[in-house]
Amino acid sequence: MSNPSLLILPGDGIGPEVMAEVVKIIDWYGAKRDMPFDVSEDLVGGAAYDAHGTPLHDDTMARAQEVDAVLLGAVGGPAYDNLDFSLKPERGLLRLRKEMDLFANLRPAQCFDALADFSSLKRDVVAGLDIMIVRELTSGVYFGEPRGIFEEGNERVGINTQRYTESEIDRVARAAFELARRRGNKVCSMEKANVMESGILWREVVQKVHDADYADVELTHMYADAGAMQLTRWPKQFDVIVTDNLFGDILSDLAAMLTGSLGMLPSASLGAPMANGRPKALYEPVHGSAPDIAGQGKANPIACILSFAMALRYSFDAGDEATRLEKAVEKVLADGLRTADLLGDEGVQPVSTSEMGDAVIAAL
Amino acid sequence: MSNPSLLILPGDGIGPEVMAEVVKIIDWYGAKRDMPFDVSEDLVGGAAYDAHGTPLHDDTMARAQEVDAVLLGAVGGPAYDNLDFSLKPERGLLRLRKEMDLFANLRPAQCFDALADFSSLKRDVVAGLDIMIVRELTSGVYFGEPRGIFEEGNERVGINTQRYTESEIDRVARAAFELARRRGNKVCSMEKANVMESGILWREVVQKVHDADYADVELTHMYADAGAMQLTRWPKQFDVIVTDNLFGDILSDLAAMLTGSLGMLPSASLGAPMANGRPKALYEPVHGSAPDIAGQGKANPIACILSFAMALRYSFDAGDEATRLEKAVEKVLADGLRTADLLGDEGVQPVSTSEMGDAVIAAL
Ligand SMILES: CC(C)[C@H](C(=O)O)[C@@H](O)C(=O)O
Ligand SMILES: CC(C)[C@H](C(=O)O)[C@@H](O)C(=O)O
Repeated sequence: MSNPSLLILPGDGIGPEVMAEVVKIIDWYGAKRDMPFDVSEDLVGGAAYDAHGTPLHDDTMARAQEVDAVLLGAVGGPAYDNLDFSLKPERGLLRLRKEMDLFANLRPAQCFDALADFSSLKRDVVAGLDIMIVRELTSGVYFGEPRGIFEEGNERVGINTQRYTESEIDRVARAAFELARRRGNKVCSMEKANVMESGILWREVVQKVHDADYADVELTHMYADAGAMQLTRWPKQFDVIVTDNLFGDILSDLAAMLTGSLGMLPSASLGAPMANGRPKALYEPVHGSAPDIAGQGKANPIACILSFAMALRYSFDAGDEATRLEKAVEKVLADGLRTADLLGDEGVQPVSTSEMGDAVIAAL
Repeated sequence: MSNPSLLILPGDGIGPEVMAEVVKIIDWYGAKRDMPFDVSEDLVGGAAYDAHGTPLHDDTMARAQEVDAVLLGAVGGPAYDNLDFSLKPERGLLRLRKEMDLFANLRPAQCFDALADFSSLKRDVVAGLDIMIVRELTSGVYFGEPRGIFEEGNERVGINTQRYTESEIDRVARAAFELARRRGNKVCSMEKANVMESGILWREVVQKVHDADYADVELTHMYADAGAMQLTRWPKQFDVIVTDNLFGDILSDLAAMLTGSLGMLPSASLGAPMANGRPKALYEPVHGSAPDIAGQGKANPIACILSFAMALRYSFDAGDEATRLEKAVEKVLADGLRTADLLGDEGVQPVSTSEMGDAVIAAL
């Protein structure tokens, strides 16, 4: 049997730096835990645009469809701000999501105890926080047609279409309920059913899936604006949140920021099972390409490392190894190691990106 | 010359209770400051549905178009949850906004010092916070066509349309720049131009209005997801935020919750100037109808009172009187008066809705 395959797309900005640390960890798993991976690497985002004039080359897309999991660093940067919409680095990411049909974006919002004081929220509001946001990732206003800027009378109009079918809602709802069963057994679904018909259908289908197959899970519904408020007020009331692509974009970033651990948070984007039973999958840190600190060895590799931990759990059926890696990260933090982004005003000396990676390996 | 006219729509839940206190204050202005108003009252929301089978009767709509300002309490409640979409209490509110063409929704997010400890955020993050969110209120996905739930193949699809014309963006941008000039002279515009063409047009038009007529105001652009994060991290970086209907719904609720003063915050929804030079205008508290405490004298009337203060400022050219009323509210809070929603665990005895209203009048 061949080794599981990984496609690595470091991307732009700090992407390559943080990914280099993950590659060390992948090597460690091959050497020390007898878990060898077949690793290939390619370009995405601005880097791909520079090389090929497109943020995602067709060959890269084809390779992403074949591998067991894709690991992505980050895309984008000011050098690409004035590119045409269709050529922007983000389009590489959006094409990967769409063509791999990665409909369930899992974004944990977890507060690392050692970092709770970094939150702008009071310690008791965030300490121990552990939410999982499940964001629909392949539909909604991100992909709906018609879209564009059109002439209308003597002016222009910008149009996008929010669009959800029953089956699109059904499958992401199932993903959320399955996750809830392995966690706190609660799902809160968020939409704007008081204003949008797509939200009415969303609420109805989530309820139907629940009643038919997940009646053991506690289900509540909340309007997305109230959801933003409740996340800010008392986030620990939530376990799993399921929501659409656009609300999920905003609410998951909000939830990530609450934790004080923004630079630490991973994500998984999962699709349907492939022939080998593994889901189509892409893993990436929640943070962006941080061009301002790129190339200086200042970046924090932990979000990218924890994204690989999610890969171990969701793609490679190695939940124990995922937990081992997560515990190693916790230990390193508890030991007081901090990259520059994690420094308060205590005069601690920061470690570099690669020192942090090495420390995690040492703790494994 | 006839007196300025006010249409009062108390609505549902705690709406009538909080509005009763505003009526006392209106009377005070007539008796003590020689500012008499012609006040009429009507039904909206669930109350209108109960009486007429519609959340907004045509006669009420017509009256709202004639008066100098509308004051609204709150709409909705669980009794109406299973009504058809078009009959829901919210539809009364949305029809008012649309037909009066109230395109600029002004939502201040202000932290009252006496209440800063109610915030889930750290005191230094929120103390002194004073942001103005300008939300476009008559277009976008709230009103765009096509919309609905349709059959497609053998399933249903929920569709809504995000839609902005240049002139719609232009006018709300101007409203934001005008406000900024009277405040901190900074505007941050939020959209998702990296994903939505309507956001690209939004950003372009806001920039154009700025460069042509408001180059003295500092303008920045931010993606709405980053905006949610930055609002949570360090909200004091903002002065005026301008954004679309849907992002504005979420971000303004988020900003309101940050302050710890959610039950205290007013709003103004303004349209184009009428023949008498006053803008079409509707004023309402940000909080909802709070059916769980309705009818118990527990509701906090301050948000509704401060909405009337906004009416004094934006409809009646009485900024000094608005400030007087706002100062009276501050004094009452500083004196330690608290309605039940504002009680921590200090064993303070709460005052009732009407006691709070009376205290504000005494402080005027
Ligand atoms: C970069 C951007 C296109 C993307 C999104 O909006 O989905 C990002 O914000 C995210 O959440 O992954
Ligand atoms: C009640 C609802 C329709 C409304 C909205 O979504 O606009 C409310 O949330 C608001 O912000 O005024």
